[in-house]
Amino acid sequence: MTRWILPQEKIPSAWFNITPHLAKPIDPPLHPATRQPVGPDDLAPLFPMALIGQEVATEPWIDIPGEVLDILRLWRPTPLVRATRLEQALGTPARIYFKDESVSPAGSHKPNTAVAQAFYNKQEGTARLSTETGAGQWGTALAFACAQFDLDLKVYMVRASYDQKPYRRVAIESWGGEVVPSPVDEPDHPGSLGSAISDAVRDCVARADTHYALGSVLNHVLLHQTVIGLEAKQQLEMAGERLPDVVIAPCGGGSNLGGIAFPFVPDADVRLLAVEPVSCPTLTQGRFEYDFGDTAGFTPLLPMYTLGHDFIPPSIHAGGLRYHGDSPQVSALVRDGRMEAVAYPQGKVFDAAIQFARTEGKIAAPEAAHAIRAAIDEALAAKETGEEKVILFNYCGHGFLDLAAYDDYLHGRLLDEQG
Amino acid sequence: MTRWILPQEKIPSAWFNITPHLAKPIDPPLHPATRQPVGPDDLAPLFPMALIGQEVATEPWIDIPGEVLDILRLWRPTPLVRATRLEQALGTPARIYFKDESVSPAGSHKPNTAVAQAFYNKQEGTARLSTETGAGQWGTALAFACAQFDLDLKVYMVRASYDQKPYRRVAIESWGGEVVPSPVDEPDHPGSLGSAISDAVRDCVARADTHYALGSVLNHVLLHQTVIGLEAKQQLEMAGERLPDVVIAPCGGGSNLGGIAFPFVPDADVRLLAVEPVSCPTLTQGRFEYDFGDTAGFTPLLPMYTLGHDFIPPSIHAGGLRYHGDSPQVSALVRDGRMEAVAYPQGKVFDAAIQFARTEGKIAAPEAAHAIRAAIDEALAAKETGEEKVILFNYCGHGFLDLAAYDDYLHGRLLDEQG
Repeated sequence: MTRWILPQEKIPSAWFNITPHLAKPIDPPLHPATRQPVGPDDLAPLFPMALIGQEVATEPWIDIPGEVLDILRLWRPTPLVRATRLEQALGTPARIYFKDESVSPAGSHKPNTAVAQAFYNKQEGTARLSTETGAGQWGTALAFACAQFDLDLKVYMVRASYDQKPYRRVAIESWGGEVVPSPVDEPDHPGSLGSAISDAVRDCVARADTHYALGSVLNHVLLHQTVIGLEAKQQLEMAGERLPDVVIAPCGGGSNLGGIAFPFVPDADVRLLAVEPVSCPTLTQGRFEYDFGDTAGFTPLLPMYTLGHDFIPPSIHAGGLRYHGDSPQVSALVRDGRMEAVAYPQGKVFDAAIQFARTEGKIAAPEAAHAIRAAIDEALAAKETGEEKVILFNYCGHGFLDLAAYDDYLHGRLLDEQG
Repeated sequence: MTRWILPQEKIPSAWFNITPHLAKPIDPPLHPATRQPVGPDDLAPLFPMALIGQEVATEPWIDIPGEVLDILRLWRPTPLVRATRLEQALGTPARIYFKDESVSPAGSHKPNTAVAQAFYNKQEGTARLSTETGAGQWGTALAFACAQFDLDLKVYMVRASYDQKPYRRVAIESWGGEVVPSPVDEPDHPGSLGSAISDAVRDCVARADTHYALGSVLNHVLLHQTVIGLEAKQQLEMAGERLPDVVIAPCGGGSNLGGIAFPFVPDADVRLLAVEPVSCPTLTQGRFEYDFGDTAGFTPLLPMYTLGHDFIPPSIHAGGLRYHGDSPQVSALVRDGRMEAVAYPQGKVFDAAIQFARTEGKIAAPEAAHAIRAAIDEALAAKETGEEKVILFNYCGHGFLDLAAYDDYLHGRLLDEQG
């Protein structure tokens, strides 16, 4: 037995809220102009009230609406897989499990929250959403979700990706979304995630029929992703494991990490490990302070680890990990010592991706490959000590749309950083 | 309930052999030089004896080796999905099911036979395989399989694809295969599947350590694909269905069609429907006669529907369906009236693919979209008659590496044929 599939009726019916489990409350977001705590009214032009409520919710569980579950069931529960061929290749006594979020329509974990956000917007009468996307993972996920609820969607895509990586742009259009390159008013600028957020927020504020949607960082986004860890817990039990010794996930804005790790926070013996690129080392090298979520300073200030909102990460292949800041909830766990963080250069990350492809058969997204790298290193450490460690990592997406990065790696064109 | 997952122990342990179920025996392949029936010795330079034996086997079931099952379990059993959102959009009383073969490492059904072929070659001491690939589906599948058995692999890739569609070339390399553009001795020629077969066979014959592998057409290839239909039968039972009214699959060389349809051949009430492009209408417009498998005439002559081995299909996006001939077993079923065939122009095929993406969330390979088109038309016919028809189709692969075709369709650049 190497794959555990939950029966469909075991799909989680409530999201796990990390808030009551934090050592101390998170400081509130601050208004960009007044620097005073923002209230629901400040956020109402951007988000439906249901999501604003989830942002500050304190109850331990929040029910998942049936309409959301109906769509999640198109691919959930996702498999838990034991990587026995990788274990054999490493000669490790560790048991390595991964949660396969690549089976979603968009090929990543992103639809878990995209569906919920589209639902709540539809329910409150929103006709149209605006959003930003970098390489396109979030844009594709939201386009899929909007197609399910018959919502219009406009995606501001970082121009460099729009020009050079057309496949995810085409996927967004296939699901019915409209895509334009960002920044919209500077046609020669390659763009950045921060500037695309500014474009999307400006679009939303200018139109009464439109709300804005964000794919990571915020509390409600991470909340929606906790189905990952909740399913994994049940599946590890099916596999005869008590609890994992360590839970590993890549970390950009924090949503796939929070999704798999938060349900294990109350289990004090379980180590939680965030993996980031050395070229964008928010958790390992950043400062914990209030900062803007975007480059232009349109968004509220959040208390988080940050490299500074004007930090422009080098153009590494794991586009989903190129963010100057981080989820306040993830940041709080790291600051308080409940979660660890490690950074890798992309050469080492692709070494691991190739070993994974040749043993387990799966071509990982560069983001997911960060978790594979850390899982392999944990397994090799267990080989040194002879420990039968149980390792769980989040396989947050496949790499079929990232093969140009593999091409660069295989032909010596990968630009590496110090690590 | 919309997805049925077989327990892992229900993965088929034997392949279903269509030979004893055919109305009359298939005429033997003929030697290209002598035009006499080929014997095992003629094929020994190309294939291991186990596969040559399967080519002419008459027993109804052939055991699947445990080493093959161990690898198939990385992704099998694959899900059976009921397309309820598509049904609702069509307003049909039909129940539409699809078998999701896109979940394999290579994203298509091709690994089902690639793994078996790699295993038998390894078992008989082969160190290296040569093969051809068009757009790359077969090359990626065989590269994955060779990585599992530590076999070297050289892939001759049609030059037009090698130059214009690098992603599958990169996937082959990621799994450790070597790729060269074909024809090797004419660097300005765009190439064709027929000429790539000639290159791969020439490579194999020149080296004692090398065998050749083919991804479709031959009896042993279709045999290995019957796990698809065998699983689907069990899953339809789980779903409370007796038998489908019609089983639908795209047909190029015939392997995904044979895979899902052959186990239903003994069920006389079940209609079997092959779907092909109007631009390469082998079953609907071809002649049933002996013809070569390749352009150069290196291969044995097979009794099949063919457009002529010098027929060069237009460059449509469903590269896997661009083959002048067809499986002799599929050809015999069509000739004898047990199987129907229909042809569609690619514009209508992509209409269906977009409707499927926006309802079921899945971006289909252009090959799979041919089956979706036919399934939708069957469901619309059922709406006219009010019949609660049960439709099963093979979703033989995802389209993440085919998004350029969607781009052409969405922006009016799709060259259509008469249909």
